[in-house]
Amino acid sequence: MENKEDILRRGRLSAAKSEEINAFTSSLQADRWIFPSDIMVDKAHTAMLARQGVIDKKDAAAILKALDSIGAGGVDAVDIPAFEDVHMAIESKLIKSVGENVGGRMHSGRSRNDEVITCVRISARKELLGLMADLLELRKAIVGLASNNMDTVMPGFTHLQHAQPTTLAHHLMAHASALDRDFERLLDAYKFININPLGSAAFASTGYPLDREYTTKLLGFDRPMDNSMDGVSSRDFILTTISAIAILETDLSRLADELVLWSTPEFGFVELDDAYASTSSIMPQKKNPDILELVRGRAGTVIGHMVAAFTIVKALPYSYNSDLQEVTPQLLRSFEISRSSVRIMTGAVSTLKINNEEMARKSTMGFTTATEIADTIVRATGLPFRTAHGIVGRLARGDGNPSLADVDRASMDMIGKKLSRMGLTEKALEEAKDPLKNVRRRSILGGPAKAAVTSKIAAEKERLKADAKAASGLAKKLAKAEGGLAKAVSDIIKG
Amino acid sequence: MENKEDILRRGRLSAAKSEEINAFTSSLQADRWIFPSDIMVDKAHTAMLARQGVIDKKDAAAILKALDSIGAGGVDAVDIPAFEDVHMAIESKLIKSVGENVGGRMHSGRSRNDEVITCVRISARKELLGLMADLLELRKAIVGLASNNMDTVMPGFTHLQHAQPTTLAHHLMAHASALDRDFERLLDAYKFININPLGSAAFASTGYPLDREYTTKLLGFDRPMDNSMDGVSSRDFILTTISAIAILETDLSRLADELVLWSTPEFGFVELDDAYASTSSIMPQKKNPDILELVRGRAGTVIGHMVAAFTIVKALPYSYNSDLQEVTPQLLRSFEISRSSVRIMTGAVSTLKINNEEMARKSTMGFTTATEIADTIVRATGLPFRTAHGIVGRLARGDGNPSLADVDRASMDMIGKKLSRMGLTEKALEEAKDPLKNVRRRSILGGPAKAAVTSKIAAEKERLKADAKAASGLAKKLAKAEGGLAKAVSDIIKG
Amino acid sequence: MENKEDILRRGRLSAAKSEEINAFTSSLQADRWIFPSDIMVDKAHTAMLARQGVIDKKDAAAILKALDSIGAGGVDAVDIPAFEDVHMAIESKLIKSVGENVGGRMHSGRSRNDEVITCVRISARKELLGLMADLLELRKAIVGLASNNMDTVMPGFTHLQHAQPTTLAHHLMAHASALDRDFERLLDAYKFININPLGSAAFASTGYPLDREYTTKLLGFDRPMDNSMDGVSSRDFILTTISAIAILETDLSRLADELVLWSTPEFGFVELDDAYASTSSIMPQKKNPDILELVRGRAGTVIGHMVAAFTIVKALPYSYNSDLQEVTPQLLRSFEISRSSVRIMTGAVSTLKINNEEMARKSTMGFTTATEIADTIVRATGLPFRTAHGIVGRLARGDGNPSLADVDRASMDMIGKKLSRMGLTEKALEEAKDPLKNVRRRSILGGPAKAAVTSKIAAEKERLKADAKAASGLAKKLAKAEGGLAKAVSDIIKG
Amino acid sequence: MENKEDILRRGRLSAAKSEEINAFTSSLQADRWIFPSDIMVDKAHTAMLARQGVIDKKDAAAILKALDSIGAGGVDAVDIPAFEDVHMAIESKLIKSVGENVGGRMHSGRSRNDEVITCVRISARKELLGLMADLLELRKAIVGLASNNMDTVMPGFTHLQHAQPTTLAHHLMAHASALDRDFERLLDAYKFININPLGSAAFASTGYPLDREYTTKLLGFDRPMDNSMDGVSSRDFILTTISAIAILETDLSRLADELVLWSTPEFGFVELDDAYASTSSIMPQKKNPDILELVRGRAGTVIGHMVAAFTIVKALPYSYNSDLQEVTPQLLRSFEISRSSVRIMTGAVSTLKINNEEMARKSTMGFTTATEIADTIVRATGLPFRTAHGIVGRLARGDGNPSLADVDRASMDMIGKKLSRMGLTEKALEEAKDPLKNVRRRSILGGPAKAAVTSKIAAEKERLKADAKAASGLAKKLAKAEGGLAKAVSDIIKG
Repeated sequence: MENKEDILRRGRLSAAKSEEINAFTSSLQADRWIFPSDIMVDKAHTAMLARQGVIDKKDAAAILKALDSIGAGGVDAVDIPAFEDVHMAIESKLIKSVGENVGGRMHSGRSRNDEVITCVRISARKELLGLMADLLELRKAIVGLASNNMDTVMPGFTHLQHAQPTTLAHHLMAHASALDRDFERLLDAYKFININPLGSAAFASTGYPLDREYTTKLLGFDRPMDNSMDGVSSRDFILTTISAIAILETDLSRLADELVLWSTPEFGFVELDDAYASTSSIMPQKKNPDILELVRGRAGTVIGHMVAAFTIVKALPYSYNSDLQEVTPQLLRSFEISRSSVRIMTGAVSTLKINNEEMARKSTMGFTTATEIADTIVRATGLPFRTAHGIVGRLARGDGNPSLADVDRASMDMIGKKLSRMGLTEKALEEAKDPLKNVRRRSILGGPAKAAVTSKIAAEKERLKADAKAASGLAKKLAKAEGGLAKAVSDIIKG
Repeated sequence: MENKEDILRRGRLSAAKSEEINAFTSSLQADRWIFPSDIMVDKAHTAMLARQGVIDKKDAAAILKALDSIGAGGVDAVDIPAFEDVHMAIESKLIKSVGENVGGRMHSGRSRNDEVITCVRISARKELLGLMADLLELRKAIVGLASNNMDTVMPGFTHLQHAQPTTLAHHLMAHASALDRDFERLLDAYKFININPLGSAAFASTGYPLDREYTTKLLGFDRPMDNSMDGVSSRDFILTTISAIAILETDLSRLADELVLWSTPEFGFVELDDAYASTSSIMPQKKNPDILELVRGRAGTVIGHMVAAFTIVKALPYSYNSDLQEVTPQLLRSFEISRSSVRIMTGAVSTLKINNEEMARKSTMGFTTATEIADTIVRATGLPFRTAHGIVGRLARGDGNPSLADVDRASMDMIGKKLSRMGLTEKALEEAKDPLKNVRRRSILGGPAKAAVTSKIAAEKERLKADAKAASGLAKKLAKAEGGLAKAVSDIIKG
Repeated sequence: MENKEDILRRGRLSAAKSEEINAFTSSLQADRWIFPSDIMVDKAHTAMLARQGVIDKKDAAAILKALDSIGAGGVDAVDIPAFEDVHMAIESKLIKSVGENVGGRMHSGRSRNDEVITCVRISARKELLGLMADLLELRKAIVGLASNNMDTVMPGFTHLQHAQPTTLAHHLMAHASALDRDFERLLDAYKFININPLGSAAFASTGYPLDREYTTKLLGFDRPMDNSMDGVSSRDFILTTISAIAILETDLSRLADELVLWSTPEFGFVELDDAYASTSSIMPQKKNPDILELVRGRAGTVIGHMVAAFTIVKALPYSYNSDLQEVTPQLLRSFEISRSSVRIMTGAVSTLKINNEEMARKSTMGFTTATEIADTIVRATGLPFRTAHGIVGRLARGDGNPSLADVDRASMDMIGKKLSRMGLTEKALEEAKDPLKNVRRRSILGGPAKAAVTSKIAAEKERLKADAKAASGLAKKLAKAEGGLAKAVSDIIKG
Repeated sequence: MENKEDILRRGRLSAAKSEEINAFTSSLQADRWIFPSDIMVDKAHTAMLARQGVIDKKDAAAILKALDSIGAGGVDAVDIPAFEDVHMAIESKLIKSVGENVGGRMHSGRSRNDEVITCVRISARKELLGLMADLLELRKAIVGLASNNMDTVMPGFTHLQHAQPTTLAHHLMAHASALDRDFERLLDAYKFININPLGSAAFASTGYPLDREYTTKLLGFDRPMDNSMDGVSSRDFILTTISAIAILETDLSRLADELVLWSTPEFGFVELDDAYASTSSIMPQKKNPDILELVRGRAGTVIGHMVAAFTIVKALPYSYNSDLQEVTPQLLRSFEISRSSVRIMTGAVSTLKINNEEMARKSTMGFTTATEIADTIVRATGLPFRTAHGIVGRLARGDGNPSLADVDRASMDMIGKKLSRMGLTEKALEEAKDPLKNVRRRSILGGPAKAAVTSKIAAEKERLKADAKAASGLAKKLAKAEGGLAKAVSDIIKG
């Protein structure tokens, strides 16, 4: 590539780079992602340079005006592949527009090392807020579905075997709880993202009298990073964020896995809306839950991105090394996947058809009432739980619907006594075998009984409100900073 | 294996398990790890059952006395491999001691599903506090070394090329900052660990009137988990914790990598204390930094444990599945590795010998003062930075020690003017080439100048104090709960 | 630790190592694993030194006699933790036994760097042959079960939806095919393991006139590695082997996942033998497939070990670095897990109870015959497949058992014609709806029809024979080499 | 999206999919990658259908003509995003061109499940052959550089400490050996790729009388897969291939890591050609090896892709699930990264400047001759190696250039005797301290002495020839099959 505008290599290096080498070193997807952030950073840095008297106000005004125009033109109007990266593409375009004698001053006291990571942090916090907003919707959809299924009795599973009866509401609120914590982890990650490395320059800060508190304010960061080598070397905020996303993805994958299972003819618990299903090119009867399978599969892709990021960072001495360039795409693809997966899942959950009858029908299959029968024996006879467990265990070889006579036979066999002689009645046994009564009895904190689930849902709604407020608080702070930056820019332009 | 004490299988299942199958299903290392926690959980559950009237006080007293004795005997006195797991081993030993009619009542309203994960959370929080304490020591050691090397000038690196002069203190404080955030992540992880699933039973809670707030208090948890299926199904607290540890491990690996590099004859910046080095079986002159290499290598092992945990959890429907048994060892090995690595690193850093002369000698190697010369040109001549960058780039092909005449030649070549005619003086150039003066000029927030690093160290010491206080606050809360549990137990025993 | 026998550190290093440091640097599990290999390597090296005249025969005889005795004593008689590693423990024990003037000659022309990796290769190939033998048994068990279920009709799944009828034999032979390739990958991995690095010394070979072809022969290697730096630096044979094991593990995991699913009450296709199932501590009716869940979960652990190994190796310059010490345990644990998982799965498959009726009953559930109906329409009417697909797609909204009148209605709706007027008969439609006839028609190579599966099973049995022969060929070659080594040793001892 | 051409959904499913859902389910990058393969598969399948009389020759001719035209138009002329995937896009375009009554017959006896994986295998084998060709060039470049540096003495490293002198040729040939095995692994992977699943249809094969041997021949596969469920369910060929690529990537990463290290001012062993280096936006003197850093970093990305693929596949029951769609991109990106990295590395190695003087100067730094001195003592005095090791260990605390008097002092200290009295001469000591003579003595198989390296290079050149022949043999077989397919197509078109 013959690049007449190569403002970097004209000094130190003689040989031009080949197209293949340029293609190899470029990171186009990431560069496009950070373009709007880069314009913000350029503006804030320039405004600060002017305020500090490093460059004069007139030059600053010219630069900022040109940046406004470049930013408005959008990323497609900047020919990134013709330059080393988006930073050089913008700076070169700026210099073309206002001349090197003006535009060449913008990069004073700065390096691409601090510039790029400031941009990544700005783009990442924006995506993170977007993901939080998406996740709030999914959580609401699940709570909504749960609210409509307080009395939908279904079998609960352990080891994918029928264990005890529960309700769909209780089951769904388990997923809601997991997603609550995912939201909390995203909030925790935000703290690690929203700190300001700008001013770190290459790694050693600079002799220019930069006001780092001022750029921190203009760019909406919580505080400046207080060691410049740390500013350019560390990527732990990316590892933290991808880890949090990967955990969210495992939670989505588990929910998707369950819905795939529940959509089988064998389970028949739910049916996806047609819009969320596909058919087969050969088997015309098929209704495939491929959206859920993709949600599940892409969790694997995000885990892969996480591993890539850790593997790359683990091996590096300080300060900046180009390996770090390869970390950013892992983050942005993790955002892409998680945001679309959360949104798709919200739609799938919201439109899901529940087959209440099938769930109810299967709720006693597999002798799910055995535990309640054992507990009933304990209450009625005073036997210890372990003994009752042993007696009911013998009944498990039967049809799952034992009579009092069956119970007596088992207890004779085990302890040489009949339970009907020790206080166990026909009525108590029948109640223990009723799945709905089973559920009702389990009314302690966290249990499936309606009262307990009602409390849980109420608490969840409070939590959703608080989380929405926390997220919008962060968004407002950023909007305010953006306003401040715009004003600072326009003040300088106006002179 | 002929196990006459198998209190579980005597009911449902006919065939005895073979030794090979038993070996396959056991998780001995994890079982040993949670033994003390299990005794605590058994005690708290029993005390609560007695308080709620589910079992009578006399039975509870007998159970608690026996548990005291089993706990005091230690894990080695319990023959775990003879049973399915540590829970059954303890319960069987209890029944052997007090009879089934008493001991068989302890497990009322509980399942191994909630029992095991409550134990894991208790053991994990203890390890986490231990790791925090270890990490505080390492952070102090690094700050101590930095404090002693405020004036130790050295070359700073980007791309492992000499970039600009800095000081060892500035460099070390970058690592200190990374470890600060690691500590913060551990604190964040603690929130996800210290919540109480006990009372979730198999997944559906129980019909027994358990008081979950009371066991929460006795066991020192922050709050009960409010969905019982979530209680036994979720392992996100493990994923969160391993991720935080893995990030810490990458930070240790990077520090280790640097020290390995700095120990080479080529760098010669540092020398490990003999106690932290090994020699060769064939090359008698060797002094190998193998401790650092192991720290670096084991970061890879922890990343592997993290991947294992994610991969396992990702694929699972609710609620409990035995795959989850395989997740716990990933956590405990991550604790083992990180705690020993942090402690070893603390020793290595504390005893490290610094070769100040070699660092100083190399601080101008590679023309590290070029950026300062460019900045000086900007200040002296008013040229834009980009132009100054280009002029100094030409000088880079020389010996790294350009005279004013050299500068003039380069500027003539580039812009057709001599900088000596535009305000650049011999004196300004000489100052720009002095590494110490280079460092002094970089005095903005986060920079390497002594004043800036002094501020940073002061802030760091405050942060260390606050972090130590936070950690000891958590530890005190646990100690208080342990005291409460001991009192509750002894009150019941005394009657 | 005060170790008077520290024959390495007495020269170069002054400070003794602390116990904590020793614990940190030790790799006890791996050391125990390679102990028998180390004795072999010591013997072969000594025999070769004697043959080359580097040490004299009498000294060699004394050394070899002592090695015989140390080897016979077993690893427990060697106090590894008192030394840096197993190599130094054996050498120190040898010196204690025959004096330094004799025993001190054994390590001539050798380093622990080449010694350890030679040992790892010897232990690894033995485990690999063991794994191959285990895998042959599993493959036979699957073929056996398939042979007994040639006519067991069942629904085949795509997207876990019923797709078309097939037979259990056809389904099982898909797993058999996957395991065939796993075996092939293990054979491929063997090539990369069984080459001889001994003689590489620290990395630069040695000035002693070693005969590397001779130790290659004595130790049963295929050939010597022909670059000594490569000999000690490379671990790609471990990455290759763990990758092959990890792929095998994914195949086991998929089979386990299916059997877990098929064991649910909803599917009800199979029932595990009681010996391979567990029950619940609270729910007495439960029969949990936890062995299968552990097989599935441990596949995740092996993937973690693989990641650890890759992550460690990726970051290292040549030649030996101690990080590599951390790679070996990943391999040996992968062997442990895969061998026990394969064996357990063999038992589970061999004792599996098949519920033929349930499989048959569900084989038409979900309109699995739709594809055959579409194909029948194509054959009968000459319509293109795409059109037939569209017509049958409309029928899919019905009950899965369409009459000819239903078909006509659908075709009228779609193409304005009745298929009964275009050649489709009642009889042809009924045949298309019969699952058994469905299967019979799919008789092309690889299909589920009995003839096709019979061919497949016959081919598989041939392949099993060939694979058994290949594995035993490798084992015989090793046995022969061991005989040769024993003879060489005894010849020297006898003088 | 309103897609009037949706030939799949018009039957079974009522609701149209939203754009968001379509975007979520698409796999555009993979679809573009397999486009040419899909055209080949369509042609081979159609030719076979015609030959078997399933469709008539005239229809086949029309289809094939249209496919020729669609293929010639290239992927950009096919509007993939308007359809579910590339298969439906091509089929729809075909139907638009020749009408449903003709074009609708192409998909007879086929499903997208077998179609897509046949396409992936065809695209993968082509990339694999490309990667092999690229790798051959890199291996040649390394051998070339080694051949020119047979006498370039340099320090060899263990633990990154100077260990013993070696030559650059010896060092480089270690990397050549690693890459040899990488090539061998790629060849092994090819076996697993090049088998034919076409004819598996959805998973159960088909009732159409397909001739699978014929499509196998037309498409250049080695053999048909002989179980149709295996055909669509298995992705182990992808796991095998990505694993092989990931191992290659670790080898590239290690080489890159070394060159980064060797490019530091401290080492100063090599200098990259300017075309392969970058400079800094702020530090004008910098010459950064960022290409090598990216090679190193991207190895991490490939490890991430590998993990993603394993994690996804591990969790899946048979047969096809849509999660598998997410596996293909992991493979294709691994090819992209590895092919470009290998090519870039070839250029960097070919143009590398070696600083022979610096390497030579440092070859004795760190007392690298200590092992040879110990060996010399053994030869001269008959002391055992262990004793000599101890004596030289004491000398290591000196300046690395011991005189005979120094040796005597150390031996007096250790064994109470002077070695000069036991046969050690001044001359022998001096020779032992000469790095060149050190190297010359290490002439056994695999050693650094010129004769040994010359043999190694000669063997390597033979191996390169054999590998090139093996790769071109595979390529020729494919070219021949392509010719056969073209002829079969044109024969039918001509009638």
